[in-house]
Amino acid sequence: MADTADLPLIDHHCHGLMLSDLTDDEFRSLATESEWPAPDGIDALDSPFGLAVRAICAPLLDIERNAPIDTYLDRRRALGVDEVNRRLLDAAGTARYLVDTGFTASPVAGPAQMRAMTGAPADEILRLERVAEEIAPGTTAENFAARFGEALYARSHGTVGLKSIIAYRYGFDIAAQRPSQTEVRAAAGNWLRRGEQSRTYRLDDPVLLQHVLWEGVGLGLPIQLHVGYGDGDVQLFRADPSRLTKFLTATRTSGAQFMLLHCYPFVREAAILTQVFPHVYCDVGLVSHYLGPSSGVAIRQALEMAPFGKVLYSSDAYGLAEHYAVSALQWRRELGKLLDEWVADQWLSPADAERYAGMIAAGNAARVYCLHTDD
Amino acid sequence: MADTADLPLIDHHCHGLMLSDLTDDEFRSLATESEWPAPDGIDALDSPFGLAVRAICAPLLDIERNAPIDTYLDRRRALGVDEVNRRLLDAAGTARYLVDTGFTASPVAGPAQMRAMTGAPADEILRLERVAEEIAPGTTAENFAARFGEALYARSHGTVGLKSIIAYRYGFDIAAQRPSQTEVRAAAGNWLRRGEQSRTYRLDDPVLLQHVLWEGVGLGLPIQLHVGYGDGDVQLFRADPSRLTKFLTATRTSGAQFMLLHCYPFVREAAILTQVFPHVYCDVGLVSHYLGPSSGVAIRQALEMAPFGKVLYSSDAYGLAEHYAVSALQWRRELGKLLDEWVADQWLSPADAERYAGMIAAGNAARVYCLHTDD
Amino acid sequence: MADTADLPLIDHHCHGLMLSDLTDDEFRSLATESEWPAPDGIDALDSPFGLAVRAICAPLLDIERNAPIDTYLDRRRALGVDEVNRRLLDAAGTARYLVDTGFTASPVAGPAQMRAMTGAPADEILRLERVAEEIAPGTTAENFAARFGEALYARSHGTVGLKSIIAYRYGFDIAAQRPSQTEVRAAAGNWLRRGEQSRTYRLDDPVLLQHVLWEGVGLGLPIQLHVGYGDGDVQLFRADPSRLTKFLTATRTSGAQFMLLHCYPFVREAAILTQVFPHVYCDVGLVSHYLGPSSGVAIRQALEMAPFGKVLYSSDAYGLAEHYAVSALQWRRELGKLLDEWVADQWLSPADAERYAGMIAAGNAARVYCLHTDD
Repeated sequence: MADTADLPLIDHHCHGLMLSDLTDDEFRSLATESEWPAPDGIDALDSPFGLAVRAICAPLLDIERNAPIDTYLDRRRALGVDEVNRRLLDAAGTARYLVDTGFTASPVAGPAQMRAMTGAPADEILRLERVAEEIAPGTTAENFAARFGEALYARSHGTVGLKSIIAYRYGFDIAAQRPSQTEVRAAAGNWLRRGEQSRTYRLDDPVLLQHVLWEGVGLGLPIQLHVGYGDGDVQLFRADPSRLTKFLTATRTSGAQFMLLHCYPFVREAAILTQVFPHVYCDVGLVSHYLGPSSGVAIRQALEMAPFGKVLYSSDAYGLAEHYAVSALQWRRELGKLLDEWVADQWLSPADAERYAGMIAAGNAARVYCLHTDD
Repeated sequence: MADTADLPLIDHHCHGLMLSDLTDDEFRSLATESEWPAPDGIDALDSPFGLAVRAICAPLLDIERNAPIDTYLDRRRALGVDEVNRRLLDAAGTARYLVDTGFTASPVAGPAQMRAMTGAPADEILRLERVAEEIAPGTTAENFAARFGEALYARSHGTVGLKSIIAYRYGFDIAAQRPSQTEVRAAAGNWLRRGEQSRTYRLDDPVLLQHVLWEGVGLGLPIQLHVGYGDGDVQLFRADPSRLTKFLTATRTSGAQFMLLHCYPFVREAAILTQVFPHVYCDVGLVSHYLGPSSGVAIRQALEMAPFGKVLYSSDAYGLAEHYAVSALQWRRELGKLLDEWVADQWLSPADAERYAGMIAAGNAARVYCLHTDD
Repeated sequence: MADTADLPLIDHHCHGLMLSDLTDDEFRSLATESEWPAPDGIDALDSPFGLAVRAICAPLLDIERNAPIDTYLDRRRALGVDEVNRRLLDAAGTARYLVDTGFTASPVAGPAQMRAMTGAPADEILRLERVAEEIAPGTTAENFAARFGEALYARSHGTVGLKSIIAYRYGFDIAAQRPSQTEVRAAAGNWLRRGEQSRTYRLDDPVLLQHVLWEGVGLGLPIQLHVGYGDGDVQLFRADPSRLTKFLTATRTSGAQFMLLHCYPFVREAAILTQVFPHVYCDVGLVSHYLGPSSGVAIRQALEMAPFGKVLYSSDAYGLAEHYAVSALQWRRELGKLLDEWVADQWLSPADAERYAGMIAAGNAARVYCLHTDD
């Protein structure tokens, strides 16, 4: 067996853990990408992810593998969230977390808390749209660009990467070139006016989404892009990364590197882009836990085509310790199985298998994000 | 082996059987989604479905497994259509049929005839577009909406669900909101005028297609949507169900439930939608027979992500008894194999495997369509 | 084992070999679809194709299976390009080459040189866009259509097929009907003016791309269409062959036959089109080598649905002898494995397996391109 069980793993894209005890409803709500409860007669945990929780996490909480979900939830509550988080994150064995701090629908841990809880280094990934939303109140069309630029520069200090959710807010049908100052000023005027009236600033204007992305390009940090599967806000077909082709061509020599996140069901499209564009990388996070028994499918699709220096590990875990554990353990197991098959068929030597596993597990992330092991 | 061989099966979407003997050309024509014969030098039954007929159906007609297709067709003719239909539908073992009565290119059986032939309950699924086409002659722009509404209400009495083929006629790029009365009136005027001139009424106007769909939403019955693969009328990329995202958001609390049919090659997109939207379900009909040896691929794709309460069985059989038999037998076999693998890998207990198989085979359909076992 | 190892193989779409020795950088550049070198820290041959070279080709050059890539490249250089080409093409065992002569970024062999080198027949596939680009200098808006028509007629003499790269240059969102003479004249005027100014003629005008495609339709030769995966010029989603549906409907009785090339990641879409349209065929070239260990995936996807009379073999090899060898050997091996599985599961008899393998390997190509074995 390719020794993936003890690989140091850099989770280059996750969110924070929930640190409070959860009701069963809250657990179920965090166990899908849906924003709404399942209809009557359906348990959201009668699902591939539910199977994974009962198969992988139950024994880690000292109950029987495949225990009924209610037994699992009872046991979880009895142990308390701290103990559950500790056990499941220990099992995940993640060596370092890069934490996207931009999604705060639930009160999840930030990098410092993740570090405190796990003892592992945890760095921040800064969400571009959030910076714009934060500086919006009091900003004018005239000073939006300047204020955003200053805030981004200040906020990005100490972060290791940026993230854009333009796939959610608009889709990837964007121009190759950055919007002009005039366009940005006009768009900012409209957006700020709308925000003032509704008292909420949700960055969904396509010109401004492109502007903040281009400002991110200017910083030279790796930029994570949500791709494909997510909640009901995303129109999947518009989140196909191949729609970025002209933008990727335009940014090839910019110094920015693009990290395509999740990618399902466009894993093959993403892998092709990693081969064609020097500054494009991909992972198969999120479905690493949501596919449960089938999560190997996504790994296999990525490795049909992608160069081994272009694939990273992430969990995209959010809130539930089960996300981190299932993602990490399934990813190790399924990558190990694939490499074992390749070794058995003499596609590569065991030493190469180990080398590639190490690159995908941590080496590529360390190189791209400039993470030093003694940080 | 997960006991899927004797599961009661509700086929929640099929068409009627052909009740007359078929020439070889007619058989071949019903053995693909093509509207045209294969070119010279090619036998349309040198195909995955052809293999399935020769492997699965031949022994049911007392000839050798893998017999040449001409032997099969000769034997089929010798036995006569009634005997062939009886044998193959017995082998399918379907417990209940929901019959779409809207596609009448060939003279196929309706629900009453299906009931008479098989002894199993058979209910009607009403096609929305057909209702509009039926009331069109003599209708005016002014009274179209009212006449359609009345006809739909009357015709839907006793049916268990509705169906829309907007994917064929226009695609899924539709607005989130229903068209206005003014828009409907204008569109009806144009469409009726065209129909009067050509003396055929084929509902292909996007406003009217949306209008009849929204009228269906108002009835609160499950609405089947053709998705993906079909005949040469469908532009596949426009039949990607993720293009419905905004429409699905808009109808979430409407009381309507959407049944995504077939879904290939968008099975993963469909499965994602079933997780995200409470009122969305899917199946992998049609390719359950057309993929022949590979039909398990579609089942596996659906069950990568979809909650087990959201997946249904259908055959989308049309005309040929072979469609019903291959779909049902392959679906049982391939679902059984997948569940067996999961049990062997301890992803779930045999009891859970049986429970989920039962939900997918019949329980989900019974719940969504409100089918009572003593109907 | 289905006897695919010795099947005569018609490679219905490839480019020519490089006949000169290559530097390591040149080799790496030909070992991906990228137009740019890999970034620092990444070896482009740490990839599925790199594994295939080291596993399949290394022993053919008398070095150890899985030898390090540098060892391989040293050995390749030591043997010299002629010997390497000879050995690897011998191993491929291709019986006939249809050579696309339109892509000349590197100085690759033409059909005559391929014939000379391999002793196998080699025919020309003529690229439509190139003919237009060749006649552009000195042409006017008024005589473009006439001059192109004459040149195409003259140049197509002795060729066995045509090729269009409209997927690269524009995408498949084209009208069902051919552009009018007026539209062509206007488009030619603009395009020729631009070309005169820039002194390069790159056919990228959508009207002219459609015009030359329709002129190809008029010749009645098979027309190869690049589909899906390629270099950074292609926007994948616009190269989805289902976007051609209306064009395919419009050309169904034209006498033209369309050969969908490569198709990844739209293999399922392509296979559906081969079932639905009598004049549509597909292959899974290019990924036959670039997927390395996983290249069977594409073959399996095609054969989920496609009639066996509609699938062809191609390598899409370009320059590197390794492309031809990996494609041919992997394709034989993976088709053989699939057929063996089907035989083992009694989906078909060994005789049928052999018959279908022969059709896909050479029979279908011979029929569609009217290739006579004594040519």
